Amino acid sequence: MRPLTIGIAGGTASGKTTVARRLVERLSGHPVAFLDQDSYYRDLSDLSMEDRKRFNFDHPDAFDTDLFVQHLSQLQEARAVAKPVYSFQQHSRTAEAVQVNPGDVIIVEGILVLGLEPVRKLLDVKVFVDSDSDVRVLRRLSRDIKERGRDFDGVIDQYFRTVRPMHFGFVEPSKRWADVIIPHGGNNDVAIDMVAGLVRSRME
Amino acid sequence: MRPLTIGIAGGTASGKTTVARRLVERLSGHPVAFLDQDSYYRDLSDLSMEDRKRFNFDHPDAFDTDLFVQHLSQLQEARAVAKPVYSFQQHSRTAEAVQVNPGDVIIVEGILVLGLEPVRKLLDVKVFVDSDSDVRVLRRLSRDIKERGRDFDGVIDQYFRTVRPMHFGFVEPSKRWADVIIPHGGNNDVAIDMVAGLVRSRME
Repeated sequence: MRPLTIGIAGGTASGKTTVARRLVERLSGHPVAFLDQDSYYRDLSDLSMEDRKRFNFDHPDAFDTDLFVQHLSQLQEARAVAKPVYSFQQHSRTAEAVQVNPGDVIIVEGILVLGLEPVRKLLDVKVFVDSDSDVRVLRRLSRDIKERGRDFDGVIDQYFRTVRPMHFGFVEPSKRWADVIIPHGGNNDVAIDMVAGLVRSRME
Repeated sequence: MRPLTIGIAGGTASGKTTVARRLVERLSGHPVAFLDQDSYYRDLSDLSMEDRKRFNFDHPDAFDTDLFVQHLSQLQEARAVAKPVYSFQQHSRTAEAVQVNPGDVIIVEGILVLGLEPVRKLLDVKVFVDSDSDVRVLRRLSRDIKERGRDFDGVIDQYFRTVRPMHFGFVEPSKRWADVIIPHGGNNDVAIDMVAGLVRSRME
């Protein structure tokens, strides 16, 4: 049986990862293959560090979508893949890779998994996690400063320069493709139970 | 076991009823009690026919919410209710009533089932059916003309006079309370399967 492929998209800090993680917990018993779009950022090692820092990480072209699609297709054929490991400090792909084993369910998560047609075409269930923009920006600011050591003004500059315009240009319009929209990000038990319920009923 | 209560809200002609009906089909095997908010319009027989026609049917006060809540509570206590039958020609409650038997699942459907706090408090699962406003208005226009014998200009007048302002004032803001948002109205199989999957898993 072909695995069921679920795509989870949404804006930055919308709660996508939390939804994905809690969905995996709810599906205990079913092996789940998890693929995050962030691991498929293009390698920027041929750019200066200054240019890497100013790179637009929120545009579709920031991702190596060919490799992402190739890996997703392999998992759908029940073949393991070697997922790249990306360094967010160096903005480059490391020499390492992580083996991702195939599962009954495949979850792909990232800001543009609904926005990129070659990825979208491979999805059986399309989920968009929707949180208010003020909540998202505060969450992102807090995370970038506290967990990633970025400075306050730099995060805000990047937000207005690329994150926000790309959100309205590519992420928000991709909501149109969603089968279901989950409001209030990752703290929405009912919605997560719903997606889990669908997966279980499709598995039977 | 207390029955699971699902509320399905959304704008006019958003596909609420279709979602509700298809959900009932998917739950075959589980007895479902169905309560539509439209049956609980206030009786307007003390108004002239002219005033009835100009009445604001899209404001929260247009509904007999006390009776609606009372009936919903009775169903939750596994007691049958005598649902009123409303005449949309006369804009009055008829002398008849329909018996609604209790079920394992209760579905309540209507534009304001999330917008009215006393109803919302009784819901276990809150669904908002979301369709684009241009699609909804064309569907409503078509339905009111072809199925309800209304005239073109009258439908458009009512739309701008009450339907649209009340939508933005009461219906659209109630989306905030939803656990899950179903885009593309009633033609969204994946989302309907999801709600059905949740119901089944809660029933087990």
